[in-house]
Amino acid sequence: MAKQKKAQRPKAVTPKGFRDYFGAEVEGRAEMLRKIAGVYHRYGFEALESSAVETVEALGKFLPDVDRPNEGVFAWQEADVPGGGGGDWLALRYDLTAPLARVYAQHRNELPTPYRRYAMGPVWRNEKPGPGRFRQFYQCDADTVGSGSVAADAEICAMLCDTLEAVGIERGDYVVRVNNRKVLEGILDQVFGFGEGSEDAELGAVYDREMNKEAILRTIDKFDKVGEVGVRELLGRGRLDASGAYIDGVGLGPHQVDLVIGFLNSRGLRNQATIEQLDELVGNAPKGLDGVTELRQIANLMHVQGYHEDRIVIDPSVVRGLGYYTGPVFEAELTFEITDDKGRPRQFGSVAGGGRYDDLVKRFTGQEVPATGVSIGVDRLLAALHAKGRMQSETTGPVVVTVMDRDRMADYQEMVAELRNAGIRAEVYLGNPKNFGNQLKYADKRQSPVAIIEGADEKAKGLVQIKDLVLGARIAETASVEEWKDRPSQAEVPRDQMVAKVQEILKGQSQ
Amino acid sequence: MAKQKKAQRPKAVTPKGFRDYFGAEVEGRAEMLRKIAGVYHRYGFEALESSAVETVEALGKFLPDVDRPNEGVFAWQEADVPGGGGGDWLALRYDLTAPLARVYAQHRNELPTPYRRYAMGPVWRNEKPGPGRFRQFYQCDADTVGSGSVAADAEICAMLCDTLEAVGIERGDYVVRVNNRKVLEGILDQVFGFGEGSEDAELGAVYDREMNKEAILRTIDKFDKVGEVGVRELLGRGRLDASGAYIDGVGLGPHQVDLVIGFLNSRGLRNQATIEQLDELVGNAPKGLDGVTELRQIANLMHVQGYHEDRIVIDPSVVRGLGYYTGPVFEAELTFEITDDKGRPRQFGSVAGGGRYDDLVKRFTGQEVPATGVSIGVDRLLAALHAKGRMQSETTGPVVVTVMDRDRMADYQEMVAELRNAGIRAEVYLGNPKNFGNQLKYADKRQSPVAIIEGADEKAKGLVQIKDLVLGARIAETASVEEWKDRPSQAEVPRDQMVAKVQEILKGQSQ
Repeated sequence: MAKQKKAQRPKAVTPKGFRDYFGAEVEGRAEMLRKIAGVYHRYGFEALESSAVETVEALGKFLPDVDRPNEGVFAWQEADVPGGGGGDWLALRYDLTAPLARVYAQHRNELPTPYRRYAMGPVWRNEKPGPGRFRQFYQCDADTVGSGSVAADAEICAMLCDTLEAVGIERGDYVVRVNNRKVLEGILDQVFGFGEGSEDAELGAVYDREMNKEAILRTIDKFDKVGEVGVRELLGRGRLDASGAYIDGVGLGPHQVDLVIGFLNSRGLRNQATIEQLDELVGNAPKGLDGVTELRQIANLMHVQGYHEDRIVIDPSVVRGLGYYTGPVFEAELTFEITDDKGRPRQFGSVAGGGRYDDLVKRFTGQEVPATGVSIGVDRLLAALHAKGRMQSETTGPVVVTVMDRDRMADYQEMVAELRNAGIRAEVYLGNPKNFGNQLKYADKRQSPVAIIEGADEKAKGLVQIKDLVLGARIAETASVEEWKDRPSQAEVPRDQMVAKVQEILKGQSQ
Repeated sequence: MAKQKKAQRPKAVTPKGFRDYFGAEVEGRAEMLRKIAGVYHRYGFEALESSAVETVEALGKFLPDVDRPNEGVFAWQEADVPGGGGGDWLALRYDLTAPLARVYAQHRNELPTPYRRYAMGPVWRNEKPGPGRFRQFYQCDADTVGSGSVAADAEICAMLCDTLEAVGIERGDYVVRVNNRKVLEGILDQVFGFGEGSEDAELGAVYDREMNKEAILRTIDKFDKVGEVGVRELLGRGRLDASGAYIDGVGLGPHQVDLVIGFLNSRGLRNQATIEQLDELVGNAPKGLDGVTELRQIANLMHVQGYHEDRIVIDPSVVRGLGYYTGPVFEAELTFEITDDKGRPRQFGSVAGGGRYDDLVKRFTGQEVPATGVSIGVDRLLAALHAKGRMQSETTGPVVVTVMDRDRMADYQEMVAELRNAGIRAEVYLGNPKNFGNQLKYADKRQSPVAIIEGADEKAKGLVQIKDLVLGARIAETASVEEWKDRPSQAEVPRDQMVAKVQEILKGQSQ
């Protein structure tokens, strides 16, 4: 084989926007997902793992804020089909909802209806990476396909509460906010007018309304940031932002602005009062009335199951970005404070969201199939658990059996076998044993709780040395030279008491 | 929105060679992987999850049986870099070893040395799909990077035994076969001659030897299929195969053939005897002697840890396809019989394999980094567990609370909330409740153990009907009309005894 020149060596880097996850990060996530799966399972949801690769055709173009097919996804064309021309375009899934729609349409004759399913796994977005913004990340979803009942939406909200508590978010530290797109439509009907004549409306007017609707939704979403005064300006003529730039307004009149603001100000009340106020605001707009009725049913269904206003809040400011939601929308928000990069306290914010989408399966089958679901932002929730101190940032390292005599590897292997058989995480040092200092440095890097030493002297006397590395590190920080010489962190025990002594030390460390 | 014409609807299908996994398949695999991770963790291995996407450059061309880069992988080019021309070529990983080499080279200054890591997840191969052959499948690997000690190889073999037992393969139902590429090299040295002059050998002769080596390895791999006589023919002049076609032989002389056959016949003896025979066969070829010494050490290290010849077998016929192995190679084989498609009994065969590969990291860093590891064929091992009846093929379905009165959804939701709070998997029927028969059909499809009915009559009396669906199905198969009318599978209990009664029925069903 020809020698490789240095210049030809491949670079050892992940592609831009991708990263690797190590040790406790991987195990902590797996453990959290296992707890979530447990709750989903108890609610009767079935696991589904669809393929990571889909045809571009099946994925469609539902990626938020993206108009062109293929944009935002990683896609490639299959090799030419013999005698056929170019192959299919394939792509990595960008979420778990589009594949669910495909799976349901493909297998609908075998699947139960309604079909409750959960899914967890990586998704991929071909977007510009940024700090903390990766092109591969985990999602964890639960959806009910084939039920138009608001009981399905209420069930998802209840399950979301149970899930957060199961992974370690305490009651009082979260709230699930619920809104309904139809209520918003009702308000817009009041803003723009509606009625018998609407079918005959010019296409241009419909288009304008859709554009305005998007603009109004985006503005509502800024309520927490710019407050009532800011939203009023943005809905009206426009506003000077903090940087001094002028932001054009949506151009609504004062009465229209009042309606939207009234809608937003319905939040923060008791659920019952919020719903009554919304009821008034939508007037006699049919869609709006529908939406209010649904919100009332959801609040009631939650209440009888024991989910009260400390956990479920009707909140008209919840918008959710995705265009495909058609009815109830919801969002789980963590309400405790964390400290941001600049040391300022702020609320942790949203970790999950979802809602009802009734048109996704129709793309495939032509028939409308009602569906509702939720997606948990796995990385955000993990970050929250870390912030609350609910996650270990390191796994406990293994007991390290050091190698004093490389010809007696069999002795050391026997020792670790004994430790492992007693359920203790343990390993032999397998690097070059010449420099003993390196072995202890290795144990340190591995976060080892205990190191075991058996040199020729010990072997001859039938003894082993056992070092408590946790105690040792503490003494090294604080002890006098005399205390250090006593070596209280090191014990010499008969070889046949090794396992018992290690167990005793580990027990002491965990207290 | 314009109406979609039927012809424009996307097809609801997975791409060719991909599939979806449902319910018990997903949960069974997750549970098996969790048990394996537990063993790996106990041995001191750390979890690693590398990105699914790598640069084509970093992946290299180590895919078995593939010479051209990109062949066999799903690859695409990143969008043009502004002012820069075409972007990087990216690809989905085809195994977990190539990414490990990249990760180790990238993070070697932060990682401990040796670095023991495990990884589990899907890999992708752009190959022609076939029956049972998919383009996305799971692997589950453990590797030790940075240790040249055969103790690292022995540790992997011991861990493989523990892993198989942890997931439910009993001792006696598996064997880990161990060989060493160096021993094979030693035999080839004896076959082709070696010595001082080999450095001066013509390049053509080296090339011939490599070609012959590949041919001999392929032939050895057929030993189980064609037996000693067949291998003799294939190593010599050639052989008529079963279909009547003539297969050209490697062209070795009788003495050379004897050497290879002697090597193969060293298997099936006690490990000690196999090693002695190999020792003789390699003569004074340095590489061969090295290999025999390593095999002896591995057998000894295993022995002191309690892994004897019922589990660890030195077997010269183990070849392992991958070109990158440089020393010990191993393979876990399940020894129990299953029935094949045509009803004939056959041994289950290999479920895991691995070995030592010392050159993979060198590609990146220029420095040789010794490494050894094993990869478990997740789907094969799951199939084996199914064959042994160790896996449930269905998860237990949920208790289904039927809907007799759609205006009392709150009552039914309260019931499932009570059941779930008692730890019972339960759900309300969320489809159209009009046809009660459909609700029971749904419960049947969901494998529900129990259905609960509360109509207006029951509600008025404070009662619920509880149907034992497992008993009901059994009676339906065997009972007379009279027995059927007795409805022993249906009980009426006060509403506040619902949970207790369901618990009682579930307990009875699980006995």
